[in-house]
Amino acid sequence: MLTLQELAELVGGHVQGDASVSIVRLSPIDSAQPGDITFVANPKYMAKIKDCQASAIIIAPGVDAPGVNLLVCRNPYLAFAKILTHLQGGAKPAAGVRPGAHVSASAEIDPGATLYPGCFVGERVKVGAGTVIHSGVVLYDDVSVGCDCLLHAQSVVREGCRLGDRVILQPASVIGSDGFGFAPDGAAYYKIPQVGIVVLEDDVEIGACSCIDRAALGKTLIRRGTKLDNLVQIGHNAEIGEDCIIVSQVGVSGSTKIGRHCTLAGQVGVAGHIKIGDNVTIGAKSGVVGNVDSDQTLSGLPLMPHKQWLKSTMTLPKLPEMRKELVKLSKRIQELEALVKEK
Amino acid sequence: MLTLQELAELVGGHVQGDASVSIVRLSPIDSAQPGDITFVANPKYMAKIKDCQASAIIIAPGVDAPGVNLLVCRNPYLAFAKILTHLQGGAKPAAGVRPGAHVSASAEIDPGATLYPGCFVGERVKVGAGTVIHSGVVLYDDVSVGCDCLLHAQSVVREGCRLGDRVILQPASVIGSDGFGFAPDGAAYYKIPQVGIVVLEDDVEIGACSCIDRAALGKTLIRRGTKLDNLVQIGHNAEIGEDCIIVSQVGVSGSTKIGRHCTLAGQVGVAGHIKIGDNVTIGAKSGVVGNVDSDQTLSGLPLMPHKQWLKSTMTLPKLPEMRKELVKLSKRIQELEALVKEK
Amino acid sequence: MLTLQELAELVGGHVQGDASVSIVRLSPIDSAQPGDITFVANPKYMAKIKDCQASAIIIAPGVDAPGVNLLVCRNPYLAFAKILTHLQGGAKPAAGVRPGAHVSASAEIDPGATLYPGCFVGERVKVGAGTVIHSGVVLYDDVSVGCDCLLHAQSVVREGCRLGDRVILQPASVIGSDGFGFAPDGAAYYKIPQVGIVVLEDDVEIGACSCIDRAALGKTLIRRGTKLDNLVQIGHNAEIGEDCIIVSQVGVSGSTKIGRHCTLAGQVGVAGHIKIGDNVTIGAKSGVVGNVDSDQTLSGLPLMPHKQWLKSTMTLPKLPEMRKELVKLSKRIQELEALVKEK
Repeated sequence: MLTLQELAELVGGHVQGDASVSIVRLSPIDSAQPGDITFVANPKYMAKIKDCQASAIIIAPGVDAPGVNLLVCRNPYLAFAKILTHLQGGAKPAAGVRPGAHVSASAEIDPGATLYPGCFVGERVKVGAGTVIHSGVVLYDDVSVGCDCLLHAQSVVREGCRLGDRVILQPASVIGSDGFGFAPDGAAYYKIPQVGIVVLEDDVEIGACSCIDRAALGKTLIRRGTKLDNLVQIGHNAEIGEDCIIVSQVGVSGSTKIGRHCTLAGQVGVAGHIKIGDNVTIGAKSGVVGNVDSDQTLSGLPLMPHKQWLKSTMTLPKLPEMRKELVKLSKRIQELEALVKEK
Repeated sequence: MLTLQELAELVGGHVQGDASVSIVRLSPIDSAQPGDITFVANPKYMAKIKDCQASAIIIAPGVDAPGVNLLVCRNPYLAFAKILTHLQGGAKPAAGVRPGAHVSASAEIDPGATLYPGCFVGERVKVGAGTVIHSGVVLYDDVSVGCDCLLHAQSVVREGCRLGDRVILQPASVIGSDGFGFAPDGAAYYKIPQVGIVVLEDDVEIGACSCIDRAALGKTLIRRGTKLDNLVQIGHNAEIGEDCIIVSQVGVSGSTKIGRHCTLAGQVGVAGHIKIGDNVTIGAKSGVVGNVDSDQTLSGLPLMPHKQWLKSTMTLPKLPEMRKELVKLSKRIQELEALVKEK
Repeated sequence: MLTLQELAELVGGHVQGDASVSIVRLSPIDSAQPGDITFVANPKYMAKIKDCQASAIIIAPGVDAPGVNLLVCRNPYLAFAKILTHLQGGAKPAAGVRPGAHVSASAEIDPGATLYPGCFVGERVKVGAGTVIHSGVVLYDDVSVGCDCLLHAQSVVREGCRLGDRVILQPASVIGSDGFGFAPDGAAYYKIPQVGIVVLEDDVEIGACSCIDRAALGKTLIRRGTKLDNLVQIGHNAEIGEDCIIVSQVGVSGSTKIGRHCTLAGQVGVAGHIKIGDNVTIGAKSGVVGNVDSDQTLSGLPLMPHKQWLKSTMTLPKLPEMRKELVKLSKRIQELEALVKEK
C-alpha cells in the first residue's frame, strides 16, 4: 500500500487531486473499486472516467476531471506497468539452496540466490545474487548465470552458455541445444559437433518451450533487452540485436543477423545467412528469404510493403474470377479481330 | 476379458450372433484374430467382414452378416473408443506420495492421488483424489488440481492456476507462463507483470510442449472438454469455449475469444482481441485477423469460404501465365485500336 | 592433439606438405592460428588460403599451394565434421548411476551407462552401455534405450517406447505423447486411448521441444539416421523413412508415410494419411495435402515445382495491378466493340 503521491514519484508523474489517498492494487477500469488505481491509455475510454469507482486514474497530461484523483504522466502505459510491478509483482522467495537441489561441488552459488528442490547445477557453474532457480531447472557444466535472473521450472541451459543479469527463462525453455548441422556422407548424414555456446545479454526474456541453439563454432547471441515469446526457434550462430520483440512460433534460421528494435510477428519464418536491419517490422506468417534494409514494415512471401501486401491478399479470393475474365476477354478480342479483318 | 454381451451393455448396443463369446482385446480389421473385437466405421471396409478372423465386429445398424458376431450400435467409432479404454486403457498406478517427491508442508494431497519421485509441489497446492502426477512435474504455489487428472512428466503449472477434474497434461506442457506483455520505454521494453492465472475446466487436455499463458489481470480460460494438440500457443487473457479441437502448432494471440465446438486445424494463426463464434472450422495454415461469425468453414489469409479458398489456391500456379496473357491481350487490343482508327 | 598425418588417416585423405605438424583444434579460416586446422569447402574462399595462419587446411583434390600444408580429401566438409568430433567433440562423463537418480528396482541399467541426479527410470526399463541420461530425463515403464544414446535434460520417453543405438534426444523432446484422437460423442469428444508406441531406430536425432506422438494401435516409426530439428510435431502412426531431414517447426499429421532421404524445410505442414516418396524436398512453409511421388523438389500450397512456385510468388505483389488492368482492358474492348459495330 502506497499513497498516490508515492506512486507519482515512483513513475515520475504528478498528482491532480488528493495526493494522500491510499492505493492497494491496480485494476481494469470497469471493475476498479475504492482503494484501486486504474489507467486510461487509450483516449476512447476517456468517457468512462466519470463513472469509475477507482481511487485514482493514471492518465496522460491535458485532461481536466474535477473531483477525480489523477496521476498525470507522459507514458501512462509504462506507469501502469511500473505500478503493477510495485504493488502486485510478487515477493522473491527466501534465498538459499533448499534441500533436494542437486548442486555440484565446484559450482559457485551466491548466497543471495534461491535454488529449489529438484534443480540440477553442474560443475563450475556460477549463479549470481538474487537469481531464482526453480525446480526442474538443469544447468550443465560451465554455465554462468548473472544476478537477479529468474529461471522457471524445466528450463535448461546447456554446457558453457552464459546469461547476463535480469534474464528471465519461462518454463521449459531450452538454451544451448545443438545446432542442426550435418555433413552429407553418401545418402546419410554425419553430425557436426556444435562446440559453440549461446550468450543471452542483460534483460533478455525467453518464452516457454522456446529453443536457442548453440553455435557450431563461436556463439549464438541475443542482445540486451530482447524479448522472445513462446515456442520460438533461433538457429545456431544467429544474432539478434537489442530491444527486439520476437512473437510466438517464429523461426529464425542459422547464421542470420537481425538488427536492433525489430519486431517479428507470430509464425514468421526467416531463412539462414541473411541480414535484417534496424527498426524492421515483419507481419505475421511472413517468410523472409533475403536481406532486409532498416526502417521498414513488410509482410508476405515474398516480402512487400505491408500496405501492398494487404491489397495483394484482398485480391486472392478474386483469382478464379480473374482467370475466367481473362478467357472471356481473349474471346471478345478474337471476335473483334475477325470482324475487323472482315471489314 | 469380457463377453460380447458385457461390451454391448458398456456401449449401449446390442448383439447379433453369439453374445457369450469372450473378447480379450481390440485390433484393426486386417490383423484381428480370434479373441479380438474389431470395428467397421467406414462403409468402404464392409467387404472385409467375411474374411475377418475377429470374434466380433462393432458395426452400425442395418448390416446382415450370418455367422458373424456383431456388436450393433449407433456410433461404432465411439463404441470402439470406449471398448479400447476398457480393455487396454491401462491400470492406474498405486496411490500415494512416493519417496523422492518434493511436497511442501502446506500442500493438501488427497490420499488417493499418486505422486512420483522427482515431482515438486509448492505451498498451499491442492491435489484431488485419483490424480496422477509424474516425475518432473512442477506445481508452483497455490495451484489447485482436481480429481482424476493425469499430469505427465515435465508438465508445469505456475502459481495460482486451477485445473478441474479429469484434466490431462501431456509431457512438457506449460500452464501459466507469463503473457507476452511489455510497455515501450523509449526504444526499450518494460515487462508488465502478469498477475492473472489460467483456468482449465473439466475434461480439458493440453498437448505436449503446448503453452497457455497466464492473464495480465484476470484469467486465461479454457472451457470444459476442449482438447489441444502439441506445440499450441494460447496467449494471455484468451478464452476458448467448450468442446473445441485445437490442432498442433496453432497460435492464438492474447485476449481473443473463441466460441464452443470450434476446430482450428494445424498451424493456424489467430490475431489478438478478436471474436470467433460457435461451430467454426478454420482450415490448416490459415490466418484469422478479424471477427468470425458462427457456423462457418473458412480457410486462407484472408479467410474465405473453404471451397472458394480451394479454387483460389488452384489458381496460384497459373499466375505467371495469367500475367503474360494480360500483356498479350493488351498488345492485341492496341493493334486492333490502330487498325480500327485507320479504317 | 594429433599430427596432420593421423588426421588424414582418420578421414581417409592424404597430406600435401608437412605431415608431422601437430594440430590442436579446428577454427574458421578467418580466425585460424598456428596449431589450428581449417577447411575450404567452397571454392570462393580459395583466395584466402595464402593469408591463412592455420597449420593445415582441409581441401578437395586439385589445389596446388606450395608452402601450405594441405589435408586433401574427396569430401572436405565431412572431413571437417569428423576432425571436429575427434578434437573437440567432448569427453563422455564417467559411467554409473549417480546419487539422486530415481531408478526403479526392475530396471536393467548397463554398468557402462551414465545416469545423472534427478532423472527417473521406470519399471522394467532397459538402458544400454555408453548411454548418457541427463538430469530431469523421465523414462516411463517398459522403455528400452540402446547403446551410446545421449538423452538430454527434460527429455521424456513414455511407456513402452523403444530407442535404438546412438539416438540423441535434445532437451525437452517428448517421445510417446498421446496421439490426438477423439471420437465425437454428440458435441463432446471422447478420448481414444493411444495404446501403441514410438520406435526410433539407430542414429535418429530428435530436436529440443519436438514431440513424437505414440500410435493409437501399432507404432509411430522413425527410421535409421533421420534427423529432426527443434519444435517438430510428428502425429500418431506416422512413419518417416531413413536419412530424412525435418527442419524446425514442421508438422506431420497422423498416419502419413514419408520415404527415405526426404527434406522438409522449416514450418512445412503435412496432412494426415498421405504418402510421400523417396528423395523429395519440400520448401519452407509449404502445405502438403496429397500424395507426392519420389524425386521432386516442390513448394507452395498447393505444391508445385519449386521454380514454378518462385515465379508464382513473384506475381503476388502485382495482383492488385493485374486486377485493375483487367478492368481497363475490358473497357477498351467495349469501346472497340462499339466502334466496330458503328462502322
